[in-house]
Amino acid sequence: MTRPRASTGRSRGNEHAGGPFDIETMAGGVTAPAGFRVAATACGIKPAGLDLALLTADRPATAAGLFTSNLVKAAPVLVSQEHLARSGGLARAILVNSGCANACTGEPGLGVARASAAEAARLLGCPVEQVLVASTGVIGVALDGEKIRTGLQRVVPRLDRAGHHDAAVAILTTDRGPKEHAVRVSAPAGRGRSSTFVIGGMCKGAGMIHPNLATMLAFLTTDVRTPSHVLARALRTAASSTFNAITVDGDTSTNDTVLLLASGAGRSVIDQDEGEAYRALVGGLEAVCQRLAIELVRGAEGATKLVALRVAGARSDGEAMQVARTVANSLLVKTAIHGGDPNWGRLIAAMGRAGVGFDPARARVAIGGIVLYDRGVPFDHRAADAARHLAGADIAIDLDLGSAGPGTATAYTCDLSAEYVRINADYRT
Amino acid sequence: MTRPRASTGRSRGNEHAGGPFDIETMAGGVTAPAGFRVAATACGIKPAGLDLALLTADRPATAAGLFTSNLVKAAPVLVSQEHLARSGGLARAILVNSGCANACTGEPGLGVARASAAEAARLLGCPVEQVLVASTGVIGVALDGEKIRTGLQRVVPRLDRAGHHDAAVAILTTDRGPKEHAVRVSAPAGRGRSSTFVIGGMCKGAGMIHPNLATMLAFLTTDVRTPSHVLARALRTAASSTFNAITVDGDTSTNDTVLLLASGAGRSVIDQDEGEAYRALVGGLEAVCQRLAIELVRGAEGATKLVALRVAGARSDGEAMQVARTVANSLLVKTAIHGGDPNWGRLIAAMGRAGVGFDPARARVAIGGIVLYDRGVPFDHRAADAARHLAGADIAIDLDLGSAGPGTATAYTCDLSAEYVRINADYRT
Repeated sequence: MTRPRASTGRSRGNEHAGGPFDIETMAGGVTAPAGFRVAATACGIKPAGLDLALLTADRPATAAGLFTSNLVKAAPVLVSQEHLARSGGLARAILVNSGCANACTGEPGLGVARASAAEAARLLGCPVEQVLVASTGVIGVALDGEKIRTGLQRVVPRLDRAGHHDAAVAILTTDRGPKEHAVRVSAPAGRGRSSTFVIGGMCKGAGMIHPNLATMLAFLTTDVRTPSHVLARALRTAASSTFNAITVDGDTSTNDTVLLLASGAGRSVIDQDEGEAYRALVGGLEAVCQRLAIELVRGAEGATKLVALRVAGARSDGEAMQVARTVANSLLVKTAIHGGDPNWGRLIAAMGRAGVGFDPARARVAIGGIVLYDRGVPFDHRAADAARHLAGADIAIDLDLGSAGPGTATAYTCDLSAEYVRINADYRT
Repeated sequence: MTRPRASTGRSRGNEHAGGPFDIETMAGGVTAPAGFRVAATACGIKPAGLDLALLTADRPATAAGLFTSNLVKAAPVLVSQEHLARSGGLARAILVNSGCANACTGEPGLGVARASAAEAARLLGCPVEQVLVASTGVIGVALDGEKIRTGLQRVVPRLDRAGHHDAAVAILTTDRGPKEHAVRVSAPAGRGRSSTFVIGGMCKGAGMIHPNLATMLAFLTTDVRTPSHVLARALRTAASSTFNAITVDGDTSTNDTVLLLASGAGRSVIDQDEGEAYRALVGGLEAVCQRLAIELVRGAEGATKLVALRVAGARSDGEAMQVARTVANSLLVKTAIHGGDPNWGRLIAAMGRAGVGFDPARARVAIGGIVLYDRGVPFDHRAADAARHLAGADIAIDLDLGSAGPGTATAYTCDLSAEYVRINADYRT
């Protein structure tokens, strides 16, 4: 086993996962791993454009899911949770529609979600509990089951590996464009088994984006052969530093869903949630989820800047993340960044209300690597340099709590623009 | 004792306070109660306009204060807390400047706050700990003590009862206008004492407004004679349903201060924190704080609508307030209201992420008294009526959690407009 190399198109194995493995970006999305096919169609739920996607595994795949923490759960969330539990963690298909969230639609909505899964199961010849469903769009509007049924009849005959881009388009609402990614991971195998596997994914989300969790739709695939409990743990771990570290507006959706299917069509077998191969799986998932999560923030409603908020010097990673998220959600911070104002006062004020104990007289604030406040002393003569950094599209903010602890965390957010207000005052979600 | 009457200019005693008492609106602000004088000047901290106010009690008044819960506390907050503790709850003066928050200014900032209080004490001939200080404006900029000193020399000779309006102007930053109010309370006296007293107040605040607490500057006065521990409890109670029930943007300032002085110059004596007279004091304070709090939200940065969010059917008042505040801070709710969209889906989604247990299938949502969602059933044919209500400036939203509990709460918020973003992207706080 060689140590990870840093080279074009290759990233060093994630240090958090801790494994010596290589991650290489490759073309494609959810069908990059072997064993998956996908198709999309326009079935008329949206006024125009693709609005239905069906992703299938050639054989029953092991499956794991993460769902919204909102008490108000959309019908597809309830049905997918039920199906995952009943199937023993196996899935053949994920059926997704955009344009209608099928949330707050009562028993009729649950009926449509169930009937849609049943129709897909009938066409694919699998048990209904092996079909997972997801929806996104307007809350409180009935989902037309007849449109889904007609759409299903059109997509099933057209399932193939080339349809991933159309599928990534079909799941969007106010998103600026499709978000998909795929990587090849080369990992130590153990017991003479092959050490290479592939992970693909696509996601949607532009508003109602907030950690805890998922806060959008994301669909991930891999060709690894692994039991569902291993898959579930790897997904949870990868999501915590990626999808759960982003925020756009602090609103948690009723429909958030992250699903991961493992086809087993590759040669990698990972049968326990420890060891180098498992860490490579987590590292690969983190790479895909991180890329999708960052694209999601960059493309958020009205966003013009991606902001990475790194917190250090906290007593624990949890406290660091609590501060990072509080600052990431501050409207005053987000509007200052939008206006290109290196306003460290708003940063330290938001840090101070995060509910985490620290001594402001030992704290430090830097924008674009330029320290503007250090242990009680402002450095306002550096403001012009920081303002130049804020004029760009990729903003780095470093906050040190000065608690001399090992806790660190990074949260990703975007600026808050008048365009966000315009979109959300005009568009009905 | 007659029961409270409802008539023009008179409001029924607050039911929460529970007392049979009359509250009558009267002219004036902080000098409406006897025993107080005030003056304001332009001392050059702001580029133009009044920016310094001095409020004095003719004799040492009993005093109570509420201060920001932010870990990062401005120098004047630290000094006022220290002075209140050292003086045994007595105060002769409150010195306020706008244009500079004197926050994150380290030891030099503390020095300026202390020196300003000392100069006021010297001019008034009182112990320094009987002077309380408050500042509002930009964070992280040094406060010029020389300007304060010069301003003090100008205001002290001009202290009178007529200056309350100028003072209410001098404490403003981005506010649209001054906010002041005064009431006369007629209450049962007990032991043959007079039953009438006066409460006055002024406040500022337009952004960085969020409960826990105060979240702005407010200065209240009364002519009641009462010990400081009674005053402190009455102030805490009155603030909990008023200043702590409003939010503009979820950001808690470093400078939030509410101060209440009781001159004892009237004939009312309230010497314990129970009984009808005490309840009348709380009721009168609630009336003044409520009016100031609502004016504050109505005049918030970019606000075009005042939104009263009433939550009922909760297991406790605390849980009801938690839901009310979460919904009040939802960007998606605030932008929908700005756009005049009767989007009950965003309301119920925000309720669902408040961290309070309830059954969405038993919940109810009404806008302007028009029920749009009732126990799982949407009533979208009523949306046009609700939209007509949203076109107005005073919005009433009723949320019932359906938990069959006695818990209720009301939070006040405003809509989120592109103007808010413009103000906060351009203005440095």
